[in-house]
Amino acid sequence: MSESTSTERGIGAGRRRLLRGAAAGTLGAAGLAAASDHPAYAADRDAPAPDGAASVSVAVLLYDGFTALDAVGPYEVLCRVPGVRVTTVARKAGPVRTDTGELALVAERAMGDVTRADVLLVPGGGNRGTVAMMEDADAHRWIRRVHRHSTWTTSVCTGSLILGSAGLLRGLPATTYWASRPYLEKVGAVYTPGRFVETGKIITAAGVSAGIDMGLYLASRLSDEKVAQAMQLAVEYDPDPPYDTGSPEKADAETQALALKLLADSAR
Amino acid sequence: MSESTSTERGIGAGRRRLLRGAAAGTLGAAGLAAASDHPAYAADRDAPAPDGAASVSVAVLLYDGFTALDAVGPYEVLCRVPGVRVTTVARKAGPVRTDTGELALVAERAMGDVTRADVLLVPGGGNRGTVAMMEDADAHRWIRRVHRHSTWTTSVCTGSLILGSAGLLRGLPATTYWASRPYLEKVGAVYTPGRFVETGKIITAAGVSAGIDMGLYLASRLSDEKVAQAMQLAVEYDPDPPYDTGSPEKADAETQALALKLLADSAR
Repeated sequence: MSESTSTERGIGAGRRRLLRGAAAGTLGAAGLAAASDHPAYAADRDAPAPDGAASVSVAVLLYDGFTALDAVGPYEVLCRVPGVRVTTVARKAGPVRTDTGELALVAERAMGDVTRADVLLVPGGGNRGTVAMMEDADAHRWIRRVHRHSTWTTSVCTGSLILGSAGLLRGLPATTYWASRPYLEKVGAVYTPGRFVETGKIITAAGVSAGIDMGLYLASRLSDEKVAQAMQLAVEYDPDPPYDTGSPEKADAETQALALKLLADSAR
Repeated sequence: MSESTSTERGIGAGRRRLLRGAAAGTLGAAGLAAASDHPAYAADRDAPAPDGAASVSVAVLLYDGFTALDAVGPYEVLCRVPGVRVTTVARKAGPVRTDTGELALVAERAMGDVTRADVLLVPGGGNRGTVAMMEDADAHRWIRRVHRHSTWTTSVCTGSLILGSAGLLRGLPATTYWASRPYLEKVGAVYTPGRFVETGKIITAAGVSAGIDMGLYLASRLSDEKVAQAMQLAVEYDPDPPYDTGSPEKADAETQALALKLLADSAR
């Protein structure tokens, strides 16, 4: 089956199922037996298998100037949910640089080759990258097209301003990066406090690391709570932040100003 | 100045300083003024500037089968610390695939071109990737070489088993991925509970998301607590996990077994 055919049924869905079936029958069993002596899997693997999980495609949109953790947080907690296949999509396939310019992730697919996805995830970005995407009519058309048939359309951080610019948030409750809240109104959304905000099939998360919390919730909806709880353990998400300055309600004015300065100074 | 020359003084240190100087004088000021109307920076930017920050190079080691969040969590909280420059290093420069095979990050530099770094960070990986790195004598030589002059040598998740295999943890307290704790002893380390464990200039973090907590602590050591607090806000790290299953002490046996099964099934 060609990649372009399989996108019509979700990204690579058929191909993935085939490989998973083969792995479970042969490679998987051998791998499990051999792996019992291996460091990453020290414990017993006789766990209940979530059977009959349908294939679910997750498309993470990358664009020049996106924020790495916005994309990687949700990826990391969704990629191991049974049946889920995550792919990265950008204007064209290949390396896409983050807001600092110091890191690049590879987009596996080009927008033109991906017409559907069960889950669309739009990460936030630095100022320049976010603004460019808020003004990118081609990207908006692609987002609306995928959204039409998606099960979930989601964003992290300033990604909600991009969803809003594509016309998806008119009159709807949403959240965004803490410093960008005033801009939600400009794209027609109603700022609503929350680590993430769910409205119909749209979920918008707060800034950067909030994508991990949203991702775990999404894992529970794509599978079940047992899987989401197991994924929280799989990424050892037992957070112990050194300070209590993770939101503007908790951080003083000086910390807020310094955070914005660090963001501006690190932007390319 | 050539890249290879600048590595002798830390990764691209001189070049970076030059660019930063230019930005502060011209582009930076213009950017700040223009940015005040932009969505990612809605608030006031008149923050105290941490002056005279020396250039600090952070090298994140990538290898086939690494875990994305292990690398990206610390990157995201270190990359905006004044004077810090993060780069990614692998056997050769170019795309490096994660443990699921679904995502690739780009290594900016090849091991052979990087002889020093102020901070070395070794992420964990899936079973296959971790084992391969535990047996990779070339990688061990490189790690030891960088460690010799580093200010900090750090790991996330099973990255500590790689540091240990390189001979860096003999008789030292360390932590690792929850399911891999028994293997620390095999590389000569003494398992010690903690979100991260500091011993001399070595810091080992627990699994995957623990790299964010360690990264913020490291930010405070590379700069100061005000900057680390600002970075916690910059990534809006005000975690609100949906469950309380993020460590084996909190998750029941069924959840642990399911987590290990999801990891095994998602490994390529």
